[in-house]
Amino acid sequence: MYNISQLQDLINKEIAEKQYPGKPAELYEPIRYIMALGGKRMRPALLLMACDLFEGSIMKALQPAMGIEVFHNFTLVHDDIMDKAPLRRGNPTVHEKWNDCIAILSGDVMLVQAYQLMMSVDDSILREVLNIFSEVATGVCEGQQTDMNFETLQEVSINEYLEMIRLKTAVLLAGSMKIGAVIGKAEQEHANAIYQFGENLGLAFQLQDDILDVYGDPEKFGKQVGGDIIANKKTFLLIKALELAEDLDKEELNHWLNEENTDPEVKVNAVTEIYSRLGVRQLAEHQMNTFAEKALSSLEKIPANSEKKKALRAFAEQLLIREN
Amino acid sequence: MYNISQLQDLINKEIAEKQYPGKPAELYEPIRYIMALGGKRMRPALLLMACDLFEGSIMKALQPAMGIEVFHNFTLVHDDIMDKAPLRRGNPTVHEKWNDCIAILSGDVMLVQAYQLMMSVDDSILREVLNIFSEVATGVCEGQQTDMNFETLQEVSINEYLEMIRLKTAVLLAGSMKIGAVIGKAEQEHANAIYQFGENLGLAFQLQDDILDVYGDPEKFGKQVGGDIIANKKTFLLIKALELAEDLDKEELNHWLNEENTDPEVKVNAVTEIYSRLGVRQLAEHQMNTFAEKALSSLEKIPANSEKKKALRAFAEQLLIREN
Repeated sequence: MYNISQLQDLINKEIAEKQYPGKPAELYEPIRYIMALGGKRMRPALLLMACDLFEGSIMKALQPAMGIEVFHNFTLVHDDIMDKAPLRRGNPTVHEKWNDCIAILSGDVMLVQAYQLMMSVDDSILREVLNIFSEVATGVCEGQQTDMNFETLQEVSINEYLEMIRLKTAVLLAGSMKIGAVIGKAEQEHANAIYQFGENLGLAFQLQDDILDVYGDPEKFGKQVGGDIIANKKTFLLIKALELAEDLDKEELNHWLNEENTDPEVKVNAVTEIYSRLGVRQLAEHQMNTFAEKALSSLEKIPANSEKKKALRAFAEQLLIREN
Repeated sequence: MYNISQLQDLINKEIAEKQYPGKPAELYEPIRYIMALGGKRMRPALLLMACDLFEGSIMKALQPAMGIEVFHNFTLVHDDIMDKAPLRRGNPTVHEKWNDCIAILSGDVMLVQAYQLMMSVDDSILREVLNIFSEVATGVCEGQQTDMNFETLQEVSINEYLEMIRLKTAVLLAGSMKIGAVIGKAEQEHANAIYQFGENLGLAFQLQDDILDVYGDPEKFGKQVGGDIIANKKTFLLIKALELAEDLDKEELNHWLNEENTDPEVKVNAVTEIYSRLGVRQLAEHQMNTFAEKALSSLEKIPANSEKKKALRAFAEQLLIREN
């Protein structure tokens, strides 16, 4: 059995040692750069843990796990262009360090590389793994487009929001774990159960992200606390607040959504106070816990080594009680 | 046996009938749009012809042929963003009609779709076909990046140029035909020969493109004649001219390369005259014919129905004696 930090080390070592073609440097340098920026390596680690859960060989799952991490970083490179984001993990984004054209093209070649890494699985499961991966990749693109659409929509319902984060965030965690399970030769029923675990964990994870953006400790969060409020981002908290607010609260919330020239701190404080009055943090936490419980109950259905299940539960809890 | 226009009709019918998910519309409408803009459908037609040459089933090759066409159109959508091109086949480009974000994301999902279409082949050849496709896709990205690099380089040699167009244009034709051959259960040696045919045909095709850009009939060319000259694009003609020009010709050519505020027509006429004095058109045609002959001699090595080989030769000649 492997613990989570052993798996993260394994992935980081593989990333550090990966060789890229030398030319054209403008195509491959950005890939090396973004992959080396770090991160929790959550998705490949979950893939490896799922494989290990079904007593599969971690080493057989390592290249597909790398494929998932390359795919995830491809989405970051392209999303950062779309969001005009200057920084990623405290460093210049690829399109800032190089330019938009290089970021588009490096991203494209990363998607191809992700498929190539995914193809290292045995012939007997090649089609199944690639089908899961293609569905996940399509879902992530659909989720990103839906998220962009939300920016200009007047109203978004909680259900629409949950479907968006399911596509944008949760299916990748779910698919990673299902691929790990397939490599570990899990039965279909158990591969589906681990998919459910990953999907609900992903939903809970994204809600925690929404909560941390407002209530995180500025010292530990790593990003600007209140960033979503400043950008009027339609998160679970804002959508719920718009749903619940009446009279003066409603007026005040709408005022801040249309206010463009105030001190950001004043806006963040004011909107956070409205959130507190409406109790949306508690509602978000309740929703998050519901997803987390669903995830854990899917895990329960899987007959596997109880120590390994315990380790997966512990990792899930670590992801949900995190501070950044 | 199928003639080329039957194959083009088959592809166009398949494109017209292809269903896409309804939501998010911003993701799938651009795909439908760019695919419907037309074009010669050269790459999927060559894939089908290669399959037919080895007596394979055209119907088994149709979805992979669609995959090649979707991939080609993905490269057009992303290249048009990078080139800031307003028009494609006389219609607004995807990023003009929608926006850059939508063009990036629709392109991404097209690359995933291309893999999914490619995966419709039998299990026994799935890995081989996807390996060829991934190598081709990587090559096309490398070629595009190399082409962008050329814009800011002082000097590019003819060999560097030929390697760039090999990657950017020729490997896709070559790979399409090799995939068709593999679906047609060709022997490795013959699949490689058809790859050589496609690669040399692609090189000849791109040189013809360079020539047509300067010497094409404005009524038939479809694009602005002299576009490459106006943009100082490092084509075979310009690179060869810079290599050969001496004294006054060299001075004049450099003058036009640095001239930014002249009437484009004056510049096009002046540079075309220098090309004529140096005889670069003839050199380009000679190089093109060398590639075309290499292509045909690869075809000769393949023991196949002579009528089918004749049809492939005829299609190759049609591509090289075209006027647009």
